Amino acid sequence: MPSFDYQPDPDVDPAGLVYTFGGAAPVASLRPGTVLTTWTRDCFAGVVRSVDDRSSELCDPRYLNPQTGPFHIEGAEPGDTLAVHFISIEPRETWGVSTTVPFFGALTATPVTPLLHQALPERTWIYDLDRVARTVRYRALDSDFTVDLPLDPMHGTVGVAPALGEVRNSLAPGDWGGNMDTPEMRAGVTCYLPVNVPGALFSFGDGHARQGEGETCGVAVETAMDTALVVDVLKGRPCRWPRIESDDYLITTGSTKPLEDAFRIAHSELVGWVATETGLSTLDAYQLVSQATLTPVANVVDTVYTMTAKMPKSALPGVTAMGGVHRRLKAVAEAWRR
Amino acid sequence: MPSFDYQPDPDVDPAGLVYTFGGAAPVASLRPGTVLTTWTRDCFAGVVRSVDDRSSELCDPRYLNPQTGPFHIEGAEPGDTLAVHFISIEPRETWGVSTTVPFFGALTATPVTPLLHQALPERTWIYDLDRVARTVRYRALDSDFTVDLPLDPMHGTVGVAPALGEVRNSLAPGDWGGNMDTPEMRAGVTCYLPVNVPGALFSFGDGHARQGEGETCGVAVETAMDTALVVDVLKGRPCRWPRIESDDYLITTGSTKPLEDAFRIAHSELVGWVATETGLSTLDAYQLVSQATLTPVANVVDTVYTMTAKMPKSALPGVTAMGGVHRRLKAVAEAWRR
Amino acid sequence: MPSFDYQPDPDVDPAGLVYTFGGAAPVASLRPGTVLTTWTRDCFAGVVRSVDDRSSELCDPRYLNPQTGPFHIEGAEPGDTLAVHFISIEPRETWGVSTTVPFFGALTATPVTPLLHQALPERTWIYDLDRVARTVRYRALDSDFTVDLPLDPMHGTVGVAPALGEVRNSLAPGDWGGNMDTPEMRAGVTCYLPVNVPGALFSFGDGHARQGEGETCGVAVETAMDTALVVDVLKGRPCRWPRIESDDYLITTGSTKPLEDAFRIAHSELVGWVATETGLSTLDAYQLVSQATLTPVANVVDTVYTMTAKMPKSALPGVTAMGGVHRRLKAVAEAWRR
Amino acid sequence: MPSFDYQPDPDVDPAGLVYTFGGAAPVASLRPGTVLTTWTRDCFAGVVRSVDDRSSELCDPRYLNPQTGPFHIEGAEPGDTLAVHFISIEPRETWGVSTTVPFFGALTATPVTPLLHQALPERTWIYDLDRVARTVRYRALDSDFTVDLPLDPMHGTVGVAPALGEVRNSLAPGDWGGNMDTPEMRAGVTCYLPVNVPGALFSFGDGHARQGEGETCGVAVETAMDTALVVDVLKGRPCRWPRIESDDYLITTGSTKPLEDAFRIAHSELVGWVATETGLSTLDAYQLVSQATLTPVANVVDTVYTMTAKMPKSALPGVTAMGGVHRRLKAVAEAWRR
Repeated sequence: MPSFDYQPDPDVDPAGLVYTFGGAAPVASLRPGTVLTTWTRDCFAGVVRSVDDRSSELCDPRYLNPQTGPFHIEGAEPGDTLAVHFISIEPRETWGVSTTVPFFGALTATPVTPLLHQALPERTWIYDLDRVARTVRYRALDSDFTVDLPLDPMHGTVGVAPALGEVRNSLAPGDWGGNMDTPEMRAGVTCYLPVNVPGALFSFGDGHARQGEGETCGVAVETAMDTALVVDVLKGRPCRWPRIESDDYLITTGSTKPLEDAFRIAHSELVGWVATETGLSTLDAYQLVSQATLTPVANVVDTVYTMTAKMPKSALPGVTAMGGVHRRLKAVAEAWRR
Repeated sequence: MPSFDYQPDPDVDPAGLVYTFGGAAPVASLRPGTVLTTWTRDCFAGVVRSVDDRSSELCDPRYLNPQTGPFHIEGAEPGDTLAVHFISIEPRETWGVSTTVPFFGALTATPVTPLLHQALPERTWIYDLDRVARTVRYRALDSDFTVDLPLDPMHGTVGVAPALGEVRNSLAPGDWGGNMDTPEMRAGVTCYLPVNVPGALFSFGDGHARQGEGETCGVAVETAMDTALVVDVLKGRPCRWPRIESDDYLITTGSTKPLEDAFRIAHSELVGWVATETGLSTLDAYQLVSQATLTPVANVVDTVYTMTAKMPKSALPGVTAMGGVHRRLKAVAEAWRR
Repeated sequence: MPSFDYQPDPDVDPAGLVYTFGGAAPVASLRPGTVLTTWTRDCFAGVVRSVDDRSSELCDPRYLNPQTGPFHIEGAEPGDTLAVHFISIEPRETWGVSTTVPFFGALTATPVTPLLHQALPERTWIYDLDRVARTVRYRALDSDFTVDLPLDPMHGTVGVAPALGEVRNSLAPGDWGGNMDTPEMRAGVTCYLPVNVPGALFSFGDGHARQGEGETCGVAVETAMDTALVVDVLKGRPCRWPRIESDDYLITTGSTKPLEDAFRIAHSELVGWVATETGLSTLDAYQLVSQATLTPVANVVDTVYTMTAKMPKSALPGVTAMGGVHRRLKAVAEAWRR
Repeated sequence: MPSFDYQPDPDVDPAGLVYTFGGAAPVASLRPGTVLTTWTRDCFAGVVRSVDDRSSELCDPRYLNPQTGPFHIEGAEPGDTLAVHFISIEPRETWGVSTTVPFFGALTATPVTPLLHQALPERTWIYDLDRVARTVRYRALDSDFTVDLPLDPMHGTVGVAPALGEVRNSLAPGDWGGNMDTPEMRAGVTCYLPVNVPGALFSFGDGHARQGEGETCGVAVETAMDTALVVDVLKGRPCRWPRIESDDYLITTGSTKPLEDAFRIAHSELVGWVATETGLSTLDAYQLVSQATLTPVANVVDTVYTMTAKMPKSALPGVTAMGGVHRRLKAVAEAWRR
């Protein structure tokens, strides 16, 4: 099983990582079918480590949410779809961090919903991660309440270079992927991304030990991750918006504001995907999607908001989506694990 | 076990039912602790019955979504909370119906998102309901695709008379409840509603054999329902927005536009609810909600949109919410079933 | 010239006025062509009178924004359009009042954009109105800055009983009119409203000595008004949303959220209106509207937001809109003034 | 009077122009106080010229809305504000063009408000521009209606390189300026832009012979422009969002979705600007803005929407905004014209 290990160099650039999708030279070239092992820094680049640390004091706003990559994917051309199968996403550390950030989050004024209020207090929570028990321990700051939540590691940010020559900050989600912050991006899924430039220029980061749907306060249980993945390229099959396939669901995403438009994107993409895979007419697919889908919010905190729509595969008997690439990449993952 | 059976009289008024929250005289008085058995018509009042029927031809727009009730709840006063425990929600018929309605739904222009497009085609789907196998059979109109989806009966519309003397059509959701169209409103849950007028004036309807989250095309698998429920009144404990408690979740709702504001309502209500029940500070509750909640969309099709936020009870060890009324009403339900 | 004077009785009901559109019995019947002279209280019913007064302490939230009426309009039937020509709107007092209201306004969290911030400080500004010099004097509270702004009296709230049996609070705008808060509603214009119930049940209030477009803090320069108006009924000509005609503009309104949908309503209504009056095709009217209209915001603070679209009559040579009713009612106004 | 003439070279790159803000090398360096004379292509780069031309057939979507520049502004550093005074904006041709573009515009489904409708018909209107009579002649396609509208030349797109290393397509508006499409950007005004990178990298284009507020169909009366301007740099005075100063108004802009948030940006910026210039407290400035501003929409069609807020200078007696740069640049313009 061919594999390739890439270690970001923390001595080059702040953290040796990148802060945009597009606009950065590839750090390496990756061949479809080769397993990539690498790691990602947390969204604060590791500098917020105790309940007394404040990201607003410790972090340069130009260098938030560092990404590992970008990787030039061999053979990927505009009009193709990149398939990224996450084999393993595991916390590197036994701690994670969340904070309130002034004027960032769903229940506060922000720079694009500017109001005349003072900022909410800035606070920092440190979580204990137990990789054996698979738990994330929450500890209240103002009382002695604690509770263990399930560990559910994922990447908040997965994407490629945008179209139209754009370069986008790693805090933004969009049709190139980016900071979608959906808990669906866990190990075992295959993420589909449009290829907008030769080589796709794939990068990812923003590991979360877990997050609630919506990532309401704007910051999940942030942690550095060790990640293994394998990619494939679907030649000549474009996709407009990122998709995710798990063993049980076909999942579409939409990222925009207002949130109902993100819902519309995710659902119109799902109607089209279901129609393509089943041969249903558009209206029949609209009807089936209307009765069968789940629609969790991904985030309501980033530069724009992300919605997902999930069609159970059980509602699509006999369908093998996207030409079976999820199944093929899972087989690669299983072979590599052995 | 005291119980009360109410049969809507189809000879009084169109369908003997009501089409507003507020503005209608109570049909009966209901004592807390008494089990109510009754039934509801489907949203089309039963007149759309075949794939050739068109709701736009058969239905008077003034008489859509009939409600059973309103019931005057003994002892309910403004400032109280009404708790409604659904004991049983079962389809009365072996068929359900869905349609596309011109200029209604999430993926079409509407009267409040008016565009210059022609209406989408109006189509009708008839579903087979199998109450033993617990399935809902979807049949495509334009191909021979069929699939059985899980039967998951629920009420789209549950509410009370609004505040400020308002009367609202049964197609609208809001802080009085109404047409929230959340699949969480299934048998076994307790719904909490604000009491705005003496007696609350509770009514409900709009049974769905199942629906996708978001109710994307605007119409679920609509069907008449036989329903049993029991109510209680939480004296002097106001709630601003409808809530739902199941065995596993505390669920808040928010209904407004844009959808991110419905998300904000549901989440700020949940932060407050969690803080009240646990003694957590507001910021600690904000943090816990941010990492632990699920946030499925209810509907993106009604006059305003509804979002839910679901906190797992497993994240709130030791908490008995709302003074334990859910547990008490479940016990009533179990006693009644025997 | 037939005329009718109606004096609200402050001893009946709080202020002898009404707080809803729909749901109230008519106070009088008004014949088309008869000039009505009456007056309206300010939105606080006159109780906020000094910079030390606080509306949150002095006002019952159930009794905000009192309306004068409703008037039963003789001959008005559902499907007709009511035309209301404002002959004169003049402040009754030499003072007006504005305030910040906790959790109300465009630059604050609100009940439907709920955030975790504390309320902004509640403050009250008193303005001097000079009805001869036609000025409104602003005086800063925290410094000695003062400035005279132009007096520009108008009614924030003008409407009829809603459709579908609804009753709506006087703080809400919608297709029945209501609390649109557009500065275009000044003396000399004709407002067109849909008739939803027999007699239309027309009422109005919420006088503003002036307001900025958007009514940003939520409260204009509120003042009691002496108003003269004359109505007519356009039989069998329905209109879906309120319109305003001035000597120079055809103006449409849309009230909903998000604000772009209010824009879409106002513009699709204007495209339709222009097409009807000129015989232009829909796409030609869309094009002309796109190049010629002005689009000031009315309010971004009420239960939903209101946008206006203004087509200059100079871009519609030869057109006499709505069958010339504006011209006819102006002639009545001129005759009455003499 | 120093001046500099720059002629874009149509043989370099498609049209010798650029299609992004950020990401392009400067074409020239411009010294503050030097008058720049140059020209801009229309948004279709001049290829849509008759009613039978279709932009969807003739234009490469990667090369829409070409910009002239970018110009490196001598002495401009991050944290400064760039002031651009438009001396003259005059159509180069005697014709302008507008179109409907499939899935683009305010009254159609779009890629980010995706619905299941077919696209509206694609049509093209050609306008006659009379630079002497100062008129723009509209001619209906489907009837013989024609009308002359006032010529009111402006630039839809004015901006600098964005912050955070981003590169944005010239179709997008934001805090860097870009495709704001406000009719306020006419000759005689001074536009203030934040400087995000050394030299600012200022560019502009998208000339409109006129447009309605909102640019409803998505395309104004597009035309190539001859433009003269002069710039200055306000050292150490940052501004977050583009502003415009005319002889009569202070104007702020906000670009985001939903439109109420663009309104909030423009108004919170205006509250801050007024407070800074007058010494009013924030709440006093909020109050004055609420009673005195005009709030025309700029566009509801681009990647995000733009709102403007206009404070009459007559409401700010004694104020000379931004240190008087508008007055100084006007004097340069007058000297240059002689």
